[in-house]
Amino acid sequence: MKPVISIIMGSKSDWATMKKTADVLDNFAIPYEKKVVSAHRTPDLMFKHAEEARGRGIKVIIAGAGGAAHLPGMVAAKTTLPVIGVPVKSRAMSGLDSLYSIVQMPGGVPVATMAIGEAGATNAALTALRILSIEDAAIAQALADFHAEQGRIAEESTNELD
Amino acid sequence: MKPVISIIMGSKSDWATMKKTADVLDNFAIPYEKKVVSAHRTPDLMFKHAEEARGRGIKVIIAGAGGAAHLPGMVAAKTTLPVIGVPVKSRAMSGLDSLYSIVQMPGGVPVATMAIGEAGATNAALTALRILSIEDAAIAQALADFHAEQGRIAEESTNELD
Amino acid sequence: MKPVISIIMGSKSDWATMKKTADVLDNFAIPYEKKVVSAHRTPDLMFKHAEEARGRGIKVIIAGAGGAAHLPGMVAAKTTLPVIGVPVKSRAMSGLDSLYSIVQMPGGVPVATMAIGEAGATNAALTALRILSIEDAAIAQALADFHAEQGRIAEESTNELD
Amino acid sequence: MKPVISIIMGSKSDWATMKKTADVLDNFAIPYEKKVVSAHRTPDLMFKHAEEARGRGIKVIIAGAGGAAHLPGMVAAKTTLPVIGVPVKSRAMSGLDSLYSIVQMPGGVPVATMAIGEAGATNAALTALRILSIEDAAIAQALADFHAEQGRIAEESTNELD
Amino acid sequence: MKPVISIIMGSKSDWATMKKTADVLDNFAIPYEKKVVSAHRTPDLMFKHAEEARGRGIKVIIAGAGGAAHLPGMVAAKTTLPVIGVPVKSRAMSGLDSLYSIVQMPGGVPVATMAIGEAGATNAALTALRILSIEDAAIAQALADFHAEQGRIAEESTNELD
Amino acid sequence: MKPVISIIMGSKSDWATMKKTADVLDNFAIPYEKKVVSAHRTPDLMFKHAEEARGRGIKVIIAGAGGAAHLPGMVAAKTTLPVIGVPVKSRAMSGLDSLYSIVQMPGGVPVATMAIGEAGATNAALTALRILSIEDAAIAQALADFHAEQGRIAEESTNELD
Amino acid sequence: MKPVISIIMGSKSDWATMKKTADVLDNFAIPYEKKVVSAHRTPDLMFKHAEEARGRGIKVIIAGAGGAAHLPGMVAAKTTLPVIGVPVKSRAMSGLDSLYSIVQMPGGVPVATMAIGEAGATNAALTALRILSIEDAAIAQALADFHAEQGRIAEESTNELD
Amino acid sequence: MKPVISIIMGSKSDWATMKKTADVLDNFAIPYEKKVVSAHRTPDLMFKHAEEARGRGIKVIIAGAGGAAHLPGMVAAKTTLPVIGVPVKSRAMSGLDSLYSIVQMPGGVPVATMAIGEAGATNAALTALRILSIEDAAIAQALADFHAEQGRIAEESTNELD
Repeated sequence: MKPVISIIMGSKSDWATMKKTADVLDNFAIPYEKKVVSAHRTPDLMFKHAEEARGRGIKVIIAGAGGAAHLPGMVAAKTTLPVIGVPVKSRAMSGLDSLYSIVQMPGGVPVATMAIGEAGATNAALTALRILSIEDAAIAQALADFHAEQGRIAEESTNELD
Repeated sequence: MKPVISIIMGSKSDWATMKKTADVLDNFAIPYEKKVVSAHRTPDLMFKHAEEARGRGIKVIIAGAGGAAHLPGMVAAKTTLPVIGVPVKSRAMSGLDSLYSIVQMPGGVPVATMAIGEAGATNAALTALRILSIEDAAIAQALADFHAEQGRIAEESTNELD
Repeated sequence: MKPVISIIMGSKSDWATMKKTADVLDNFAIPYEKKVVSAHRTPDLMFKHAEEARGRGIKVIIAGAGGAAHLPGMVAAKTTLPVIGVPVKSRAMSGLDSLYSIVQMPGGVPVATMAIGEAGATNAALTALRILSIEDAAIAQALADFHAEQGRIAEESTNELD
Repeated sequence: MKPVISIIMGSKSDWATMKKTADVLDNFAIPYEKKVVSAHRTPDLMFKHAEEARGRGIKVIIAGAGGAAHLPGMVAAKTTLPVIGVPVKSRAMSGLDSLYSIVQMPGGVPVATMAIGEAGATNAALTALRILSIEDAAIAQALADFHAEQGRIAEESTNELD
Repeated sequence: MKPVISIIMGSKSDWATMKKTADVLDNFAIPYEKKVVSAHRTPDLMFKHAEEARGRGIKVIIAGAGGAAHLPGMVAAKTTLPVIGVPVKSRAMSGLDSLYSIVQMPGGVPVATMAIGEAGATNAALTALRILSIEDAAIAQALADFHAEQGRIAEESTNELD
Repeated sequence: MKPVISIIMGSKSDWATMKKTADVLDNFAIPYEKKVVSAHRTPDLMFKHAEEARGRGIKVIIAGAGGAAHLPGMVAAKTTLPVIGVPVKSRAMSGLDSLYSIVQMPGGVPVATMAIGEAGATNAALTALRILSIEDAAIAQALADFHAEQGRIAEESTNELD
Repeated sequence: MKPVISIIMGSKSDWATMKKTADVLDNFAIPYEKKVVSAHRTPDLMFKHAEEARGRGIKVIIAGAGGAAHLPGMVAAKTTLPVIGVPVKSRAMSGLDSLYSIVQMPGGVPVATMAIGEAGATNAALTALRILSIEDAAIAQALADFHAEQGRIAEESTNELD
Repeated sequence: MKPVISIIMGSKSDWATMKKTADVLDNFAIPYEKKVVSAHRTPDLMFKHAEEARGRGIKVIIAGAGGAAHLPGMVAAKTTLPVIGVPVKSRAMSGLDSLYSIVQMPGGVPVATMAIGEAGATNAALTALRILSIEDAAIAQALADFHAEQGRIAEESTNELD
């Protein structure tokens, strides 16, 4: 199936985090593509990727990057699709640099920013699903089921406190 | 016209910031509602608002809050619609507490987080527009025009450096 | 015996920290209950738990949570009992996000916040004991004995410096 | 009437903040005392004050201090009454130093910490009221009324967004 | 004279800071150009500017930007000239976001980062002068004279302490 | 020999850090005592220790503590001897809480603060030695020799870069 | 009288802060000198000043500086006298950069660090006085009197709370 | 060949980081020297090294240091050559202290600051190469080739996501 979500990341090492995004989309059977697109090492590829995304049927771009993380913001500058940014945990600053570089976008070019690390990568997929659910009742229902299931698991876990 | 965007905020004083969201939606002629919904002072109203939003035709919820800002995350827990969080600048911590309280959501319940303050409020509206643009070519075009205009203004402002 | 303290936590993984709270209450023979109550995954359960606590004879609620930690503040919004918040150490931010999300409550809805992690979980129980000691001379005496013993141990530990 | 709450602060200049505590107690007609007790300038007075508080009928001590704020923690070391700490906003660090000095107490000696500044001072009084409400139904009712009123005001403030 | 330094900035409002760069270059009589080049609003112009700089005789690019400051890093990705980044003071975070976004570049694409604000803008010019001085003895001498003068002024200012 | 330096620490676990202080004093053959003195667990002992120090011939007090580290400041409040504070690395905050609690003393009661952790513990001893050296030419000479030796080691270590 | 304390500062603008040091020394009638000595603009003067201080009868050096504050640490590297560092409040970072640059000295070369800003400048003088008091009973007595007076003022200020 | 780049570092332990600088220069066949030059332990050597660098044919100085990192700034005060600073990761503060000590230089004496740790050490070499490339077309070409190769590797790494 043609991908509707494009997962991109600044380097191969970000995949350890961004795999969580793919896992969620797999569970919800949403077709996606995944690609290393580096703002700093492949800037032209990044612009091309962002510019052509809508035309290729992509509906949401999810971009993960760490350190001086420019990928989400620069992609947002070259498309009008929603761009979701995932701050990858960095070495010296534990992802605080990634978070600030992604979330503090100036008025005019928005990036929908998630939590640092794996929780953020998981939620990037769920944000994309919420967006798709606006016009797709089946996804809305699947999300409602997911929430109910999450609640059930949380509630039952009380029994595992010893 | 029936609102498709719901702008909520934790207190009246957040309106100084969140007005920027409304301004952008006004410019793009997107119908919206605005409401004070306090997580801590009106918790039941908050749950009701979140639960009924989809049924009332709301497509995106934009929630602004400051300090220990629980509104965006709690609303996200009670709806499957996309929720955009705007960290309002706080007194002692300049909005860092607002940002962390909103963006660091656990895996499972996502909030699409914007920059602290007015830039974030502006971008919350633009994120909502990008989401709507997925299925609405006119909005997509309007966003493209907006970007072109922003670029033109930026470029011309070189002449104003003296 | 009927519990007078309710220990709740946002997820099973918080138990590693919150067990310290239970340990102290066990030592002082104070009856308590423990439960996973997730603000984001079981919001309705959370509200019900908070609303019914006083009626069930609970005198103090101790809530531990990490990251964008909304549990203590939201519970405080739904009860007039004292709520003690324990910021659980988080992955990327070492609990700074947990701390700010819990302590920076707006005027009107208070959460009595403890230190990040195990020290905070221990002190949450001791705070509850101090509260109970206001009207219970036996607990006041037990706390005084505990302090005396802590002092004795500290003083003697000088002999273990080599 | 004999005071049941003791409001102490490290210096006269903290009164600008701690007045909010007194205001709330005045509104709820709870008798209190207020006093400058400096950990660093009047250490013996501080110890005496803490040691004698319970005997004088005090039920809760509220201590506000800024910078390297040692007052709440040191008072907690000399009494078994509940001690509530209010981090006062400081000059260079906006109260972050006050917050860390108060909240990061080691396991064994707890301080119930509030938000930085006026919100924290307000909530210190409300925490004390919640504590008193455990055994005092009239205070419990007054708090419930206060919350209802706060909710009503919040809800109505929607009309003031323009 | 043909410019050898290119001063670019993300928006007109950065000029208040970047004027300091121009002032220093004026004092040393180094020809420069100044331009608003926005990473997010004029991304194509930015790439073009960076790509053509060397061919146009530019030797050093100085880029000032604030918030999620992507301009210096993205320009560095599109040229092999030295790029000096100036973090402009931002509203909520006082330029900490600007600093982290500029300095934390991944290995491979370097940005020579200056202090936040006016001191940084001044030093960006002086860094460019030091670079030019490697092959230009007159500039080296002018810099030595400047340092001597700065030292003389500092030393004499002792007389102004009263 | 009668001790002239008193090394105190808030708990036995701080000894791992404070041993560095003792090591330096051993190397310089300065007599010292070492003791666990907890601000929060043995407050009366702390006051007694501080009050009697000068009378017992102590010339400098070195106090190490972590977290909400009140020991150095409280000791300084009870003596007019110089007090040197060592912020011990803490769990969640890596010693930032210790540092702020120690260094941010209000005007009137000074604590001479060192770096976080072992470097700070080493330098606490060296600071004490510098103080003693004012009136003791032998110590002044020993310090000069130490510096010369440190310089020699640093310079020679170039040969160990491979 | 020959100065025994040398107050130096990185620039004339630091005098606004460092004047507090001079004020305290004036009150205690301790002879001192004051001088602008810039680590970066007058490095040779700085070395000369540090090297000759002991020979000129100086007993303690107090150095105030802001931003990347290298003055206290570099002076400490060129003398064996005690060096007290005062972090001056800086523009973008409110003195956090000054504090870290001064306090985080490596093991071997100590700087006795004070609080950021005026409180730190006041305490620098008081630290110097405590050092001098080791061998000077009159200063010890004057400090004791000062503390008693400070305590008296603090205690009486209770009457000014209204 | 005579070195044109001088790599200096504050201590032998910094070599683990600064080796990355040497590796890059080796790959580009640029002659360099490497040396331990400690600001605090060998201040005179540091001044001599900085003063003589230009005369010895050095074109760029790269200085790595951690904690209260004064080496880059002090060297910059004693030469008019470009100085590149590498903040080495420190123990308690993960290099934040190193970064602030290096980057926050006052206007007048610039240090071109890199990212914390190995990425910064790599980029220090690449910055030096960019500087040399201004007058050396072969280096300019080598850098262009390096960038092309980096881009190729990034692009191909997409195939390694599984």
